Amino acid sequence: MARSKGDLTRDSILVAGIALARELGLGAVSIGELADRAGMSKSGLFAHFGAKETLQLAILDATLAQFNNEVARKAFQAPRGLARLRALFRGWIDWGLAQQQEGGCPVLSAAAEFDDRPGPIRDFLADTQRQWLASLAKSVQLAMEAGELPADTDTDQAAFEIFGLILSGHHNYRLLNDLQFGERAVVGLERLIANPPRLGHALP
Amino acid sequence: MARSKGDLTRDSILVAGIALARELGLGAVSIGELADRAGMSKSGLFAHFGAKETLQLAILDATLAQFNNEVARKAFQAPRGLARLRALFRGWIDWGLAQQQEGGCPVLSAAAEFDDRPGPIRDFLADTQRQWLASLAKSVQLAMEAGELPADTDTDQAAFEIFGLILSGHHNYRLLNDLQFGERAVVGLERLIANPPRLGHALP
Repeated sequence: MARSKGDLTRDSILVAGIALARELGLGAVSIGELADRAGMSKSGLFAHFGAKETLQLAILDATLAQFNNEVARKAFQAPRGLARLRALFRGWIDWGLAQQQEGGCPVLSAAAEFDDRPGPIRDFLADTQRQWLASLAKSVQLAMEAGELPADTDTDQAAFEIFGLILSGHHNYRLLNDLQFGERAVVGLERLIANPPRLGHALP
Repeated sequence: MARSKGDLTRDSILVAGIALARELGLGAVSIGELADRAGMSKSGLFAHFGAKETLQLAILDATLAQFNNEVARKAFQAPRGLARLRALFRGWIDWGLAQQQEGGCPVLSAAAEFDDRPGPIRDFLADTQRQWLASLAKSVQLAMEAGELPADTDTDQAAFEIFGLILSGHHNYRLLNDLQFGERAVVGLERLIANPPRLGHALP
């Protein structure tokens, strides 16, 4: 479907907004600041977004749309089951590395910035996180239903641990600049696939 | 050993500095800002720290000293091996929850803030991270040497995955306020102990 001129303008504002969020942190992105940096008129930005918080939410939403397009949609081309889970995981690692080259993932750094500031941004991040854990658990469940993982696999626990592998890869890579951390994450996923968490495990 | 009056003043400045770093982010902590907030004289702070960056490094260092005192030193009271590894892990989770109550861990948020800013702060964070991964790997190795883990356990891979469990617990807890994430981290550690990563694993 062809996009209207209004959509294109909104998209180009958001591309500039994502870059600014990477540079300054999402909390410092305001309509005035973005207008200055991107050489756009402040009234034009107000027409699109109305308020700073609306702009910040739109920046997060655009980043997630990009993630869905570049990672999730591509992984869906793999057959459901472990093939798709592995494709999702590797795409996610590549996304993290690419974000790092460009100055960091706006969603992850917004989580660090807004976790102690109640309001719509924090609510949005929490909802996104909940949906993402559910969607990872669903990918594990499809592999289970395909008979590729045991029937008593704890899908929520698996999602939690998979998320941890990515976070550890991301955190270590961005501080230590060593690509081995992407490979360590993949090794961790394979260990999880070989010995998945099971329901009904007792804590020691 | 009794501490000198100078030490006590330095300590109380750093307590105020840690609180300010939690509130504003480490990058926004300056000698002037801290003097205003803590009701101290700017010249007194200069006498102790000389420059903004020295103050920021001292704040990170004081946070790590607190972590070592509250988590690592306590874990060392457990016998070496899995008992100590479990004590370290649980202490670390409790530390993360306590940090969250007080506004977040200054070291973790500094990592998000400074990962793309080359300089002494980033170098300090990278060194700290390298040492911490080595120290986790060492705890795993002691359990291996005690015969509680297989002799071909990949200790560096285990350290990477253990770090991920804590990060996932921390990230999810701070956005979703649900204590289950601390328990999920412990379940993940037990799965790792039951089926540790081995050296010489091939990637798929």
